[in-house]
Amino acid sequence: MPCIALLTDFGLRDWFVGAMKGVIAGIAPRAQVIDITHDIPPGDVRAGAFALWAAAPAFPKGTIFLAVVDPGVGGPRLPLLVEAGGFRFVGPDNGLLDWAAAGGRRIRALRNPAYRRKETSATFHGRDIFAPAAAHLARGARPASFGPALEAMEELPRPKPRRGPRGPQGEVLYVDRFGNAITSLAPADLPSGTGALRCRGRLFPLQPCYAQAGAGKPLAVTSSCGLMELAISGGSAASAFGLSRGDRVISIQRKV
Amino acid sequence: MPCIALLTDFGLRDWFVGAMKGVIAGIAPRAQVIDITHDIPPGDVRAGAFALWAAAPAFPKGTIFLAVVDPGVGGPRLPLLVEAGGFRFVGPDNGLLDWAAAGGRRIRALRNPAYRRKETSATFHGRDIFAPAAAHLARGARPASFGPALEAMEELPRPKPRRGPRGPQGEVLYVDRFGNAITSLAPADLPSGTGALRCRGRLFPLQPCYAQAGAGKPLAVTSSCGLMELAISGGSAASAFGLSRGDRVISIQRKV
Amino acid sequence: MPCIALLTDFGLRDWFVGAMKGVIAGIAPRAQVIDITHDIPPGDVRAGAFALWAAAPAFPKGTIFLAVVDPGVGGPRLPLLVEAGGFRFVGPDNGLLDWAAAGGRRIRALRNPAYRRKETSATFHGRDIFAPAAAHLARGARPASFGPALEAMEELPRPKPRRGPRGPQGEVLYVDRFGNAITSLAPADLPSGTGALRCRGRLFPLQPCYAQAGAGKPLAVTSSCGLMELAISGGSAASAFGLSRGDRVISIQRKV
Repeated sequence: MPCIALLTDFGLRDWFVGAMKGVIAGIAPRAQVIDITHDIPPGDVRAGAFALWAAAPAFPKGTIFLAVVDPGVGGPRLPLLVEAGGFRFVGPDNGLLDWAAAGGRRIRALRNPAYRRKETSATFHGRDIFAPAAAHLARGARPASFGPALEAMEELPRPKPRRGPRGPQGEVLYVDRFGNAITSLAPADLPSGTGALRCRGRLFPLQPCYAQAGAGKPLAVTSSCGLMELAISGGSAASAFGLSRGDRVISIQRKV
Repeated sequence: MPCIALLTDFGLRDWFVGAMKGVIAGIAPRAQVIDITHDIPPGDVRAGAFALWAAAPAFPKGTIFLAVVDPGVGGPRLPLLVEAGGFRFVGPDNGLLDWAAAGGRRIRALRNPAYRRKETSATFHGRDIFAPAAAHLARGARPASFGPALEAMEELPRPKPRRGPRGPQGEVLYVDRFGNAITSLAPADLPSGTGALRCRGRLFPLQPCYAQAGAGKPLAVTSSCGLMELAISGGSAASAFGLSRGDRVISIQRKV
Repeated sequence: MPCIALLTDFGLRDWFVGAMKGVIAGIAPRAQVIDITHDIPPGDVRAGAFALWAAAPAFPKGTIFLAVVDPGVGGPRLPLLVEAGGFRFVGPDNGLLDWAAAGGRRIRALRNPAYRRKETSATFHGRDIFAPAAAHLARGARPASFGPALEAMEELPRPKPRRGPRGPQGEVLYVDRFGNAITSLAPADLPSGTGALRCRGRLFPLQPCYAQAGAGKPLAVTSSCGLMELAISGGSAASAFGLSRGDRVISIQRKV
């Protein structure tokens, strides 16, 4: 029985996530359900896509990702089932699945009413369409039985490093709860001899780990998702320097 | 093995919910435990009763609801086991269970010391009385073995639509994390020809879904729990218009 | 299959806890994973140690506690496996495990690369070292196979009651989500005839339970973790009186 991994913007203070799990328990009582997060900012498809991409590699092949950040619920956007990279993804066609569902994709629309709740609300497809689909998949329903194949799905443009006058330029993609700012630059994007990253006028010297910088000192480190991250040892870089998504990040050569 | 669905006001920042689950794991290690929410505002029995009522229909029959919003813990209020509507409910006798445990109820006091933790604190019956009761139920203990039958339990008056001069009047029952305000009016309460709901002087035109209104526009929609809900497409109606629980809501006829 | 109980400071708004659970699911898919809390304030080893100590007795023997509050991640501090009191603990050697892992301890460093993720980041040992260790333990790997025995681990000095001029003195150890302030004084520390505790100039009369004091009245009660706790019936003592960790608490004799 594969596990079902949930990511939503439903928060934990209402009953929405519990209701989705109740639906899953009714269909696939032995499925293991794992929360990735439910605190994606309301409607922030971009933050959801990033978190899903960052979390997915930690899960075993076969995992069913049930992702719902869905400001267009009830409107014309399609509900999808996507197979990619040994995983399966269930969620709305608004770009949310684009970064995580990489590799040769097989995309289907969720159409089959047998895999929906009997009464489908216009405001909560997480409970009424997506959760039942994930649960039926976990029980072994074949992807082809959910609905017709689609040629393409919504994409979410991902910032690529640009070539600036003094080296590659990227941007802040995500700020985590510790105030670490994950950038769009991978270690491989940095030219040899890079000594630091710069953002909002501050220098973040490259370090092998947080503890290597003195307490309270800024640093750049390879984040656990494989991208470069701006941090402060024992503090919040985002609070200290006002870093936020979209901030420009450039690489600085080590002084010789 | 039925699932146990938890709803409390214990929050997630301390160890309280974990301790309840530890107790359950010691008694019924194979029970599946599902969180509805633990972020009911401290002591807010009314919000807890609403969330429990809204979540319950998504769960399979046989589910054991373990609900603890219990400002009177350690005092004279009884701990209850209630069977109703194919579900079982464990929690304090303070109205919390009243809305969800609908239909022909069988009510019992939790008295049997064999189904409590050996040492029962005066401050944490969630861990010491309610969690063990739910776990023993999940393992198959018969309801009659928990304690004596009771004739009645605490009720929580539920606002019924009133007849106003120009149509039915209701009120805001619950504001969710998205700032949607769920009202006491069901679609069936609205006279034919209703075109909008009004609250705090604002009009919320009836729409089939959020996306149907233009971004930033107010709307009224059938909420996923079956009641009418006041919302803003892509925003928070509660923040924008200062909606809160108890606000009066009236129905407005469509202009002809 | 024993259960794995998680306690971290990772929060729930990013994907970090989900990634740890994904790793566990890949190694020990049938292990039951229980969250104690993930909202320990970032880097607050002391709060983490207290919550772990308070939660542990509710769990069945055999439980594997996976605890990560790890400001020194990537630095020289060792990753540990500790057996104590019928439990097993996995986490960093920074004092976090000290209070909960009481009794005759067997301590080991987590060295065996077979029980780590293939690529080990310098910033997320929760996912790459601690979660795999806990999962392999749950599957039955022998403790001795994880790494060499150690003689000692980091300790966290625990405030002991001192003898003041008028009776024992303690301090506030932890403030919970309800604003209850748990102190370092146990009921057995209080001399007979104690009528109240005093903190920040306020008297908290001893009561058997919250409800016994009138609404809004301060009280001292035996907390569910076995220590004395300062509270307000139906309110937050911490907010009302500005109580916080480290505040001095003294016992006051009952007037005769």
